[in-house]
Amino acid sequence: MTEQSRFPPRPRILLTNDDGISSDTLWATYQALQRIGDVLVCAPATQQSAVGRSLSIFKPLRVHEVMMHDVVSYAVEGSPTDSVVIGLFALKWNPDLVVSGTNIGENLSCEAVTTSGTIGAALEAANHGVPAIAFSLQVLDQGAKFSDPRQQERKFDEVTTVVEDVVRRVMTQGFPSGVHVLNVNIPHIITGAYEVTTLAHKLFQTDVEMRHDPRGREYFWLTGPLIKEAPKGTDIYAVNQGNISITPLTIDCTARGREEAVLELFL
Amino acid sequence: MTEQSRFPPRPRILLTNDDGISSDTLWATYQALQRIGDVLVCAPATQQSAVGRSLSIFKPLRVHEVMMHDVVSYAVEGSPTDSVVIGLFALKWNPDLVVSGTNIGENLSCEAVTTSGTIGAALEAANHGVPAIAFSLQVLDQGAKFSDPRQQERKFDEVTTVVEDVVRRVMTQGFPSGVHVLNVNIPHIITGAYEVTTLAHKLFQTDVEMRHDPRGREYFWLTGPLIKEAPKGTDIYAVNQGNISITPLTIDCTARGREEAVLELFL
Repeated sequence: MTEQSRFPPRPRILLTNDDGISSDTLWATYQALQRIGDVLVCAPATQQSAVGRSLSIFKPLRVHEVMMHDVVSYAVEGSPTDSVVIGLFALKWNPDLVVSGTNIGENLSCEAVTTSGTIGAALEAANHGVPAIAFSLQVLDQGAKFSDPRQQERKFDEVTTVVEDVVRRVMTQGFPSGVHVLNVNIPHIITGAYEVTTLAHKLFQTDVEMRHDPRGREYFWLTGPLIKEAPKGTDIYAVNQGNISITPLTIDCTARGREEAVLELFL
Repeated sequence: MTEQSRFPPRPRILLTNDDGISSDTLWATYQALQRIGDVLVCAPATQQSAVGRSLSIFKPLRVHEVMMHDVVSYAVEGSPTDSVVIGLFALKWNPDLVVSGTNIGENLSCEAVTTSGTIGAALEAANHGVPAIAFSLQVLDQGAKFSDPRQQERKFDEVTTVVEDVVRRVMTQGFPSGVHVLNVNIPHIITGAYEVTTLAHKLFQTDVEMRHDPRGREYFWLTGPLIKEAPKGTDIYAVNQGNISITPLTIDCTARGREEAVLELFL
């Protein structure tokens, strides 16, 4: 569990994401963070959605020093998790906090924790003992998630405002002990307040779509609409009510309290 | 939480892995399972270690019907998670149990749960309400993990024996309620018994190694030796003692019991 709870007056922050270093919501997030601390941007060079906490063990990683928005930044030819490892161990940034996002598209439920690249980066940081916050923005049109984000420019001021407020609260009051990652989801239109939530079970009604290529051979697309129904108190419910969902996460997935039942199986 | 606990006399089992469909330990696992139930092999076409629960949302998936070891099987050009989705929703196998592995190399600690492709497949199954067991075999020489597995032929009979025993116990007594995945790790040499464990914190002492290409430009390899020290009661400790580690996992990573501390932050 995270022991550390207090931060220095001007903390060192590592900023990454999974949509890639050119994402406008990464830079809306940067705007908030640079008011609070010293920020190193180290993020995937390209789109890495749905890669979870995958890391590159079969290929070497290139890291490009690039100037973006007048900021010297690092573009990693790998996953969000690779970017965190490069930031910590190659660039030796030694952050007080890792921020991942803001992702274009909500990261909600037990599904997102292990499939989202945004959250994957945060889990990696947490496993190295660095408190981490993942930010994601609900997008109503799923197709728009990966298209030109400038269409949603209005929302980006809200992203900056929410990121700054959340991080300032954590910096002032400390990162809650016993929590590894705060998973923050911002609704498409904020009509409520902050709501501390639990993970819903599942976000997507998984399915596949079979198609045929021009040569008549089958291939499949993973697909599935969003699940809108979830119990009160969950992250999905909160965001659909217009609240900013804050879910405290742990990296310890041991099913606690079930030891007896499992012991009986293996006597 | 998994409600279902009893199985039919001859259950339907989906078998996948992350080392790819040609892995000899996949087929050692198959040998055990075909004595127990009807088994569909649907596994990645190629090596997919360390991809976690990543899934393919930007590329369509090809699925190849192949004959391997005299068994009609399905090779998916994607991740372990993709293979589970294809098995459930394209091949419509509707399994009573998903088995993932046996992986060449141990999958231990909070790190492995979210970075291992073997466990990733099991998490995917669990998120669809299907009980899942991940099997992994400790390998002392890290380099040997991905080289010719026939060198380790002696161990494969033990893999078959352990898989059959574990699955028979679960089939007879039911999958423990409140548990989503059983994570089973078999030591390199079994000298003990089953041990029900919790997740250790971390398996690898993460680091990076900088090299220069023939043109003098930098690139990085992720690296890091195994961490051998872990508290008694953890999966790492158990396997290093020669015990077969059984860790019950949950897909719900909400940090329970920390609500008050988080609520205080967002008043």
